[in-house]
Amino acid sequence: MKLATVRDGSRDGALVVVSADGRRFTRAAAVAATLQAALDDWLAVEPRLRALTHALESGRAPAEAVVYQGGSGVLLGPCDDIPLADETWGLDFESEVCVVLGDVAQGTSAAAAGATVRLILLCNDITLRNLVPAELAKGFGFFQGKPATAFSPFAVTPDELGAAWHDGRVHRRVRTTYNGTLVGDVEAGPEMHFSFFDLVAHIARTRAFAAGTILGGGTVSNADPARGISCLAERRAIETIAGGAPRTSFMKPGDTVSIDMLDDDGHSVCGRIAQKVIKHR
Amino acid sequence: MKLATVRDGSRDGALVVVSADGRRFTRAAAVAATLQAALDDWLAVEPRLRALTHALESGRAPAEAVVYQGGSGVLLGPCDDIPLADETWGLDFESEVCVVLGDVAQGTSAAAAGATVRLILLCNDITLRNLVPAELAKGFGFFQGKPATAFSPFAVTPDELGAAWHDGRVHRRVRTTYNGTLVGDVEAGPEMHFSFFDLVAHIARTRAFAAGTILGGGTVSNADPARGISCLAERRAIETIAGGAPRTSFMKPGDTVSIDMLDDDGHSVCGRIAQKVIKHR
Repeated sequence: MKLATVRDGSRDGALVVVSADGRRFTRAAAVAATLQAALDDWLAVEPRLRALTHALESGRAPAEAVVYQGGSGVLLGPCDDIPLADETWGLDFESEVCVVLGDVAQGTSAAAAGATVRLILLCNDITLRNLVPAELAKGFGFFQGKPATAFSPFAVTPDELGAAWHDGRVHRRVRTTYNGTLVGDVEAGPEMHFSFFDLVAHIARTRAFAAGTILGGGTVSNADPARGISCLAERRAIETIAGGAPRTSFMKPGDTVSIDMLDDDGHSVCGRIAQKVIKHR
Repeated sequence: MKLATVRDGSRDGALVVVSADGRRFTRAAAVAATLQAALDDWLAVEPRLRALTHALESGRAPAEAVVYQGGSGVLLGPCDDIPLADETWGLDFESEVCVVLGDVAQGTSAAAAGATVRLILLCNDITLRNLVPAELAKGFGFFQGKPATAFSPFAVTPDELGAAWHDGRVHRRVRTTYNGTLVGDVEAGPEMHFSFFDLVAHIARTRAFAAGTILGGGTVSNADPARGISCLAERRAIETIAGGAPRTSFMKPGDTVSIDMLDDDGHSVCGRIAQKVIKHR
């Protein structure tokens, strides 16, 4: 089942279910007004959303055309521009797989974590590289270095991935295109050191999490250089090892990045993130 | 104006307005169902909440009795037990002043930040001290070391503090009682190095924030030791300087902490946080 949110002027946007081919959707307001409302009461809502999906696929529900992902707090839609106020901040993309969790009790083990994963999607975990070193040096972690994140158009239930979802990993390639050139076609599964189940157990060690928590798996990366890169920092590191200094610059206004994940038939699983950098103000 | 949330079985709880003496409240469902909904549309909602407060004070609105603070995500109410799974984690309280923000645009200056502060409240920013050093050493900041935070029963509009709210600081004493003994009666205003306005400008440098963001001002602390402490780590540091090693242990099941802030007449501004540590599971 594919879910998405359509902008309707409200904070969270309107929940819709999407056809398997990603080309049609129908509003789910009669079942749950927002994605957060659906996650808050998932066990009751999920079967009704699945029924609505079946109605959409069989032509019994009205289909609509273009979809965008919204979210609570300040997040970016899949085709939103990336506003950059200062080029010296070192803007970078990061292609990542994320999961959306249901309620997670304190002390949930990795073995029990599978039941907490409700949805899978992609994100562009945008980073301001040149602000990061000073933040890490203080020990208190990222803050200014991590502006608003962009998400894929669709979030899918784990069954949509079939056998590609196992052991808490998504065994699909994440493809990243930078300024029109494919720069990464990277396996997200086998080299993911900590699975999403491990990560759930880690975050829940000392506290519970509420339905709607988005958990990112980190930038997708493979040891094989032929698979390419999922962020410019990785390319700059490779260049530094090879030649002593990075040759690739960080992103500038006008640059574009797109992120996608295809199934065995070449169909997009979560839809494509496609963004352009613009000057902020 | 004092606001609070009453547990009603829903995720966010029901929004209520509270009388000036903190003893009565009335439901605000006809104006806004939840505190988040009020913050999402504050300019339209605030005058109606104020009218409801006037009706409550004048006896024209029905009053009810006991209030609790809820919130989105997993937060603790003011009288919730603090669940502790492992005493070696080093449980500590931290008495803090917080503000709740409206929408904050990217690049908001400290001079413009005053207009973004909607509400003021207290929190117990619970910390697991012995998990913090390893987390800080990794550079990525607190995670397991910061379990769910508890908040005061009421959140008040800045005008409730009168002249005590100026320059983005709350010029009131925060009183902390540990196991029945007053351990801190600390000025929150004059020694707050960065004002809330400075902090808003800092967090908004590279991104926007959504209405409902809670911004904590850090543990309240004074240079004068006679004012006491707002967390056990501070006392342990004083003991270490004086005698080479800390004598005070961190919190154990059965320990209690309460946090309050009084006005010039000795009335509680945001109500009292009063919690007990219990063994988790």
